[in-house]
Amino acid sequence: MLDQIHIDNLIALIGVSNVMYGGLGKRSDPGMSAQNLGADVVVNPGSQAEIVKLVEYCNLQNISVVPQGGRTGLSGAAESEPGQLIIDMHRMNQIIDVDLVSSVATVEAGVKLEMLQNQLSENGLSVGVDLAARGSATIGGMVSTNAGGTEAFRFGTMRHRVLGLEAVLPNGEVFSDLKQVIKANEGYDIKQLLIGAEGTLGIITKVVLALAPADSNRTTALISCENARSAAMTFQKLRNRIKGDLLCAEIMWPEYAYTTARSLNLGKLLEFSESPADVFVIVDIATNSLDGANSYLEDLLSDLIDDQGIRSAVVAQNGREASDIWKIREESFLCDEKYPNGYWYDMSVPLSHLDQYVEDIHARISAIDKRLKLFLFGHLGDGNLHLTVSSGLSCPELQPQIDAAIYDGLREIGGSFSAEHGIGNQKALSLKKHSDAEKYRLLGLIKRTMDPNGIMNPGKIFLY
Amino acid sequence: MLDQIHIDNLIALIGVSNVMYGGLGKRSDPGMSAQNLGADVVVNPGSQAEIVKLVEYCNLQNISVVPQGGRTGLSGAAESEPGQLIIDMHRMNQIIDVDLVSSVATVEAGVKLEMLQNQLSENGLSVGVDLAARGSATIGGMVSTNAGGTEAFRFGTMRHRVLGLEAVLPNGEVFSDLKQVIKANEGYDIKQLLIGAEGTLGIITKVVLALAPADSNRTTALISCENARSAAMTFQKLRNRIKGDLLCAEIMWPEYAYTTARSLNLGKLLEFSESPADVFVIVDIATNSLDGANSYLEDLLSDLIDDQGIRSAVVAQNGREASDIWKIREESFLCDEKYPNGYWYDMSVPLSHLDQYVEDIHARISAIDKRLKLFLFGHLGDGNLHLTVSSGLSCPELQPQIDAAIYDGLREIGGSFSAEHGIGNQKALSLKKHSDAEKYRLLGLIKRTMDPNGIMNPGKIFLY
Repeated sequence: MLDQIHIDNLIALIGVSNVMYGGLGKRSDPGMSAQNLGADVVVNPGSQAEIVKLVEYCNLQNISVVPQGGRTGLSGAAESEPGQLIIDMHRMNQIIDVDLVSSVATVEAGVKLEMLQNQLSENGLSVGVDLAARGSATIGGMVSTNAGGTEAFRFGTMRHRVLGLEAVLPNGEVFSDLKQVIKANEGYDIKQLLIGAEGTLGIITKVVLALAPADSNRTTALISCENARSAAMTFQKLRNRIKGDLLCAEIMWPEYAYTTARSLNLGKLLEFSESPADVFVIVDIATNSLDGANSYLEDLLSDLIDDQGIRSAVVAQNGREASDIWKIREESFLCDEKYPNGYWYDMSVPLSHLDQYVEDIHARISAIDKRLKLFLFGHLGDGNLHLTVSSGLSCPELQPQIDAAIYDGLREIGGSFSAEHGIGNQKALSLKKHSDAEKYRLLGLIKRTMDPNGIMNPGKIFLY
Repeated sequence: MLDQIHIDNLIALIGVSNVMYGGLGKRSDPGMSAQNLGADVVVNPGSQAEIVKLVEYCNLQNISVVPQGGRTGLSGAAESEPGQLIIDMHRMNQIIDVDLVSSVATVEAGVKLEMLQNQLSENGLSVGVDLAARGSATIGGMVSTNAGGTEAFRFGTMRHRVLGLEAVLPNGEVFSDLKQVIKANEGYDIKQLLIGAEGTLGIITKVVLALAPADSNRTTALISCENARSAAMTFQKLRNRIKGDLLCAEIMWPEYAYTTARSLNLGKLLEFSESPADVFVIVDIATNSLDGANSYLEDLLSDLIDDQGIRSAVVAQNGREASDIWKIREESFLCDEKYPNGYWYDMSVPLSHLDQYVEDIHARISAIDKRLKLFLFGHLGDGNLHLTVSSGLSCPELQPQIDAAIYDGLREIGGSFSAEHGIGNQKALSLKKHSDAEKYRLLGLIKRTMDPNGIMNPGKIFLY
């Protein structure tokens, strides 16, 4: 743990009630990893000025800083260890301004996504990025990890929503670029380095977001397709036809879909499918009124049935059916319960390569151990796959081979081994292995240029 | 001009037919500035490998390199001078792949926008960024300047369309990040530094673009509004209501609109407006069929008339009327003809600040010289204003004061003094003046880190 002299100095900087240590630093909810609170020294600054003081002190004293938002990350970017200082942003939770004329929101970094969503929806607006951890995830954390979610094919990831931001850099200086406009070409767009930097280049304190129109009534359909290519073409045809009214497009491969549906006692929902080898697609479509929404969607899909390899489709007849369909997609932990000790992956694959890639990884995983199963689903609209590989048995000795089976060749087809969960400490080795050499060199150059003492979230993105 | 020994060595690298000098280097079309061909030594590489050889040589010999695409830039980013080497990308003009399943195009940097548009439109797809210089502008140039245009409120600027790119860095190494997916978090997004760098960090050779659905039939309306606020609210209401079917929203202030319309003999088109002080808005709306499109748009607008300060509106009854309405917006050079010797500006202003900003600059410009007129129009959807300030008389001594009148205070309201035309050499001084100090420090750090010998397009973005 940090020496008592440092703790005394931190207390002098921001007050005794905002510094937790000596066991108290581990009493909060650690979120997705117990190691998030490993440092056991947590400061809760209430302003950017306090963060400046803290970072200046840490830079001078060579103390490592771990910034934390909602602690919902899945790659260990918020993990900390004794001797480090956690800067917890939860007190900086003000929605500073929602400008309805400009369609722009300005918020402190500690604002939770759901809090902002609630305020916006009253005005018919939306953040444009949504994810399951909305009740905990903060806007600052979402910017730092360039969060994606289910709407990225419509509105992009956080990188595409951020118009401006302020951050405290590792040297304690404030970088301020609070643009409220999308067109601004004033030299290199430095804020893009901070977006997705997972706290390794500074601490984001304030964010300006472009807002999107909120959606009207939504109707859900479940579609079975011959393969991922026909699923992708169905998606493209639907999007070209109804544009912004296509709200979601998710994909599930059969092993995942049947395992989850049976665990939920919802197996009957999949019986409309004529072949057990089909992939399933869930779409949500916006309709102006509820009247006639179902028959509108049925007509829309039946136009595509012969055309694009859709085998069959069902439209949810009410909210309960829609919610049941979505449960199969969302309650992915049920596969983990049935097949524990699995490894999770988060890749992006160009839609035209989906079938070949899925076939290849099945073959490669099977060659490692025939008992390993692949539970595969994801965001069809942007080719973002989530995957659990498990035989139910613990097999840590196989992980390097499984990693290689999943990751090798992704770069060559234009995909990514790290889609929306970030690198953190878990994928730092894979980043080194799968990066373009010149890109990896530039990553290190920029880190050393902006953080010469290496105090900002060390061991994340880069290996220690 | 470059010494003959260098020219001989360049010829040895890429062949005599691809090196032009001794007057021949000035024979091409210089595009938007005669100074673009000032160097008089032009090389036309045909491959990335040749560019690597050229840049390695220049880096070793400390020769300044000026990359050029379509030479359509308006801020002097492609200007060159004796002793420098122009790398002209026009031979690298292959559309490598259009992937309809993934909705992604991969192109060489020298491909012209219009060439790509033509190929895409056959498949119902679009680049998502359009601009008047489409016949000359290259994709590489558009990425290097982060081009915007009329569709940025829908699909973003080039920064938001680029999934991947390849570039030759100042050290002659190739940076390769040819992702075809939108979700990829693999450390800092280095390609964002090259986007909008105006050739100062490397030469973009290949680009992967996300594609957007093409639009169906379009109907045009001309609307008169009490002020810019009601214009902005009309835009927001329309966008929230019809989302992706709102294709364009442009704004013209009265001095600009009446001057241009009269020059075109189209003054009668503006007579529907009840007040000469009104601002005009042009919208294009997509409709599934031509039948009933006009009455659909009339109904849509009449809903807004009482609600949002729309005073009156006319819907173009045919293609000729639509084209006449658009002429008033597009033939902005007519103001320059009538009032020559003007100064051009390209700002972004948050929509909620438009009225106050326009009132302020009128007052400040009038205080400089009462004879100065402001011709103001722009892209309403993203607050991007284009402005000419002119009394018709030459007044170079007033330019610094006029610059200050237009630029001061923009940063504080979240706007930008440089929206879509870039910095080039014309605004390098203004960039220094109007940047956040820490941002400007980082700009210089990154330039020196990536281009220690300062060979890539010197004097652009940064002062010599």
